[in-house]
Amino acid sequence: MKDVDLKQILAGSEKLKTNLYGKDFLLTWEKSWDEIVAVLKVTEALKYLHSQNISTRVFGSGIAVSNFRDNSTRTRFSFSSACNLLGLAIQDLDEGKSQIAHGETVRETANMISFLTEVVGIRDDIFLGAGNTYMREVGEALDEGYEKGVLNQRPTVVNLQCDIDHPTQSMADLAHLKSYFGGLDKLKGKKIAMTWAYSPSYGKPLSVPQGIIGLMSRLGMEVSLAYPEGYNLIPDCLEVAKKNAAASGGKFEVVHSMEEAFKDADIVYPKSWAPYAVMEKRTQLLRANDHAALKSLEKDCLAQNARFKNWECDEAKMKLTKKGSALYMHCLPADITGVSCDEGEVAASVFERYRIETYKEAGYKPFVIAAMIMASKYKNPFKVLKELESNATKRVRY
Amino acid sequence: MKDVDLKQILAGSEKLKTNLYGKDFLLTWEKSWDEIVAVLKVTEALKYLHSQNISTRVFGSGIAVSNFRDNSTRTRFSFSSACNLLGLAIQDLDEGKSQIAHGETVRETANMISFLTEVVGIRDDIFLGAGNTYMREVGEALDEGYEKGVLNQRPTVVNLQCDIDHPTQSMADLAHLKSYFGGLDKLKGKKIAMTWAYSPSYGKPLSVPQGIIGLMSRLGMEVSLAYPEGYNLIPDCLEVAKKNAAASGGKFEVVHSMEEAFKDADIVYPKSWAPYAVMEKRTQLLRANDHAALKSLEKDCLAQNARFKNWECDEAKMKLTKKGSALYMHCLPADITGVSCDEGEVAASVFERYRIETYKEAGYKPFVIAAMIMASKYKNPFKVLKELESNATKRVRY
Amino acid sequence: MKDVDLKQILAGSEKLKTNLYGKDFLLTWEKSWDEIVAVLKVTEALKYLHSQNISTRVFGSGIAVSNFRDNSTRTRFSFSSACNLLGLAIQDLDEGKSQIAHGETVRETANMISFLTEVVGIRDDIFLGAGNTYMREVGEALDEGYEKGVLNQRPTVVNLQCDIDHPTQSMADLAHLKSYFGGLDKLKGKKIAMTWAYSPSYGKPLSVPQGIIGLMSRLGMEVSLAYPEGYNLIPDCLEVAKKNAAASGGKFEVVHSMEEAFKDADIVYPKSWAPYAVMEKRTQLLRANDHAALKSLEKDCLAQNARFKNWECDEAKMKLTKKGSALYMHCLPADITGVSCDEGEVAASVFERYRIETYKEAGYKPFVIAAMIMASKYKNPFKVLKELESNATKRVRY
Repeated sequence: MKDVDLKQILAGSEKLKTNLYGKDFLLTWEKSWDEIVAVLKVTEALKYLHSQNISTRVFGSGIAVSNFRDNSTRTRFSFSSACNLLGLAIQDLDEGKSQIAHGETVRETANMISFLTEVVGIRDDIFLGAGNTYMREVGEALDEGYEKGVLNQRPTVVNLQCDIDHPTQSMADLAHLKSYFGGLDKLKGKKIAMTWAYSPSYGKPLSVPQGIIGLMSRLGMEVSLAYPEGYNLIPDCLEVAKKNAAASGGKFEVVHSMEEAFKDADIVYPKSWAPYAVMEKRTQLLRANDHAALKSLEKDCLAQNARFKNWECDEAKMKLTKKGSALYMHCLPADITGVSCDEGEVAASVFERYRIETYKEAGYKPFVIAAMIMASKYKNPFKVLKELESNATKRVRY
Repeated sequence: MKDVDLKQILAGSEKLKTNLYGKDFLLTWEKSWDEIVAVLKVTEALKYLHSQNISTRVFGSGIAVSNFRDNSTRTRFSFSSACNLLGLAIQDLDEGKSQIAHGETVRETANMISFLTEVVGIRDDIFLGAGNTYMREVGEALDEGYEKGVLNQRPTVVNLQCDIDHPTQSMADLAHLKSYFGGLDKLKGKKIAMTWAYSPSYGKPLSVPQGIIGLMSRLGMEVSLAYPEGYNLIPDCLEVAKKNAAASGGKFEVVHSMEEAFKDADIVYPKSWAPYAVMEKRTQLLRANDHAALKSLEKDCLAQNARFKNWECDEAKMKLTKKGSALYMHCLPADITGVSCDEGEVAASVFERYRIETYKEAGYKPFVIAAMIMASKYKNPFKVLKELESNATKRVRY
Repeated sequence: MKDVDLKQILAGSEKLKTNLYGKDFLLTWEKSWDEIVAVLKVTEALKYLHSQNISTRVFGSGIAVSNFRDNSTRTRFSFSSACNLLGLAIQDLDEGKSQIAHGETVRETANMISFLTEVVGIRDDIFLGAGNTYMREVGEALDEGYEKGVLNQRPTVVNLQCDIDHPTQSMADLAHLKSYFGGLDKLKGKKIAMTWAYSPSYGKPLSVPQGIIGLMSRLGMEVSLAYPEGYNLIPDCLEVAKKNAAASGGKFEVVHSMEEAFKDADIVYPKSWAPYAVMEKRTQLLRANDHAALKSLEKDCLAQNARFKNWECDEAKMKLTKKGSALYMHCLPADITGVSCDEGEVAASVFERYRIETYKEAGYKPFVIAAMIMASKYKNPFKVLKELESNATKRVRY
């Protein structure tokens, strides 16, 4: 970021046609390409202003509700940091599983927590078919509350990972790719291998691979999705990727060999997930609270995983990539062979070579989240960013 | 709030004689009528300024301690939101039940958490005879710390629900009534039915009905308290209501029929609670840690409740009210028949008709809490509010 | 603080040679005497400005990570309050013990939580040989992240208690002594008795006595460390105290009689701890997760403690001190005979006489922590403090 300035980052922003104001951010493929580009520009601008010690505290007060329906350290910190960067204070919504369910309760709770709330960040990726639906229920409840005068403002819902997409991750990944390769235009024609990888754990969500194929297929890239037979994603997400690839002049393929996907790839993203069918079964069993069957499912699934231990991103497979030097990506934490587990997604030497790059990849996430919020709260976020630079209020003062 | 402005909200405020500065807010009936009116005016002013996007951040820094001795989502959010609105940061005091008890420990802990603290919000409604007492112990410890130079400032204690009163709830309810009927003067002569209602759960605190009869009896209203024989409140609280009614030119009656209370009522507030005698017994058993006897008490109590399933606020009973259109109130969450339980406090159709009104009722709570804080921190909060409007610093900037 | 002003507090500060900028604060004996004095002056200045209602909010935004690896109410509040005083927002890092361990994970997590972080406060005093090591691992990971462009800023690590030192406690104690006796120069030649005391609990950390002898030995004081045979501290810490005493023209002795240590003492600090050998054994058993052996160790250790119930700070022993009126100190909470336990560290009458003084002692801690942060973030914190006074932005506004 040394040689860029705000003017360069925002170049061309005035031509972007966007409709992000007042909208939630739930799936990247619900947003137009101009909107994706706009959020990326705001992301980069916020990161730049932070590096220049310029305050981007656009809220004098206001609450950001953090609603995590499963454990998370990294995304929680990204969300907290993003909200703090803009001047919002975090309030955790720690729901007892029984207390806050769907239906009536969502409608009421959404309003009860929102009287002075500007953002509601939700992570809900455990139940297939439920996470994204829940976010929309919250959004509708907030619409009603705002329209009927219960709320002075309509809080923005941000998807911090659901059963379908993980937009803050895929957008951070795209920001990283843009920076690494020197521009979005440089990505056209590049090959990205989004591949399953072996992990000794089970039940990892589908949202990262689905998010990656749903977003990277829009850049004219060659997206190769690879997994062992049976490790399918949600069929609708593949349809999205197919359509996107066709529209952007790229390619989308599904293969069942890690080697095939890696061949001549510019970028590899090896990451474990559970098969769609298993996630569906698991959702049913979780709902039925059937612990015995869940245990048995886990055992079967781990046994199945173990048949594919060769799906590891090792040095031999990396050699197959373009000039043997594809960019390795991961949403972290990775299962690193010999480091965090005996046998895992990636060889230690490969991971170590790209370790700092994966940290940088993750480093975009707080700014992506802050950008999604700003784009929803301001009709012209670019103008606000320029004013912030002109005012030049120091973040760390004196 | 469309047609009012700050001048109208604060009209007459200069004539109010108040002594709220530096005082805790523990029971509404410890406050003079002028003081109640003053807190209401500050409440409305803060809500108005928020709706106008004017910052009311009167603290540049400072801690607000959130001390919840039982579970709460709504009141927790209201307190957090209120403190954030004024510029204070929340720090939760999560006491292990053993670690922080009464006596010496309260004295010490109250000071240890208060070096940079402006407000201590306490919710403690489980033990009859204990919650309000605990708040006063904290207050006395803070007095000592401030007088002896341990603390640079005396934090304000705010009662977020105790065994006796729930002043932030009753004040929010009053703000809602004032708005709904168009002024405090319009409430004179109106009939409010504060009635017990059937619930399939047990052990609900007495503080809401006690708070309602203790406050609404001060307005010249006709307060009808109804409950099945045996479901008494704390006797002292009934004495308070009686005296208040006499002094304000209103009425206070106790009846044992929901229908009788509803008859010609302008406002109905049907809500379950546990009998005073049961709460006393329960307190003893909780202190003795007698789980078996607690289980047995719960069983007996639920069986007793079940005898009064007809104490439901249904359409037939609503027809008995003034023109069949009394305002339905509830502190939420309500036990709604066929929605949140099989048989409950209120019929689904009645609740749905007033659902948005109950949300608005709840919406006053953060502003009530903020008003209690401001009234304790500023000798002349009205002057501060006017200055905030003149300065017109935007809350959401740009 | 009535008669002092900022000028007096900062008198002589321009002559101090310090290298605190950009550095972590992990052990007092890693800091030069000038650096200790500088942190004390910033502490006092912040406390003074707070008492004068002058804002010291030097951060417009930024995260302070609170990483407590064991329970704490007081230190947690001190850290939160300190960060809030400077304008930082707390984000708790609640690590599952399995999720965040040492090695690779520390390296990664330290960066993942730090993209917008200014301070990381760590408390880790359970495992002997581990706590301070962990803090250095975090520091090294942050160095790497900052150098390699992952982080825009290098967060400061503050030791909120480790296995070796408890610098925020000992610095608060020193600030209290300075205030009580009227200046650091007045402490030269004074005798301080840092003594073990009986407690009915077990496994109390060594960091307080080690911190006290490591710091107070630098002032030309006579430091008398007393404990029953076998209740040794970490040998290296005694070496530090010996060297410091020699260099500062003071004395350091180890005795095995509370009476001998109290004789003619100006200050007494009676506090329980577990023997070094027990803590080592306990660390091994905790690592091995050997619950049975831990239970047995606890039992043995309590039995051993019980042999030394006469190590209580009672009125008779207080009579042995200088004019019978030594200053009693404690890091709180103390085990008070007949108050918080049947037999403990201190007699109730002694504690009560010094109770308010112990509160004042504790009251320095938030300001010490804030001073450590400021000294690490600003090349010239004294200049910043003067500017804050000149600007005179009110903390509680209007």
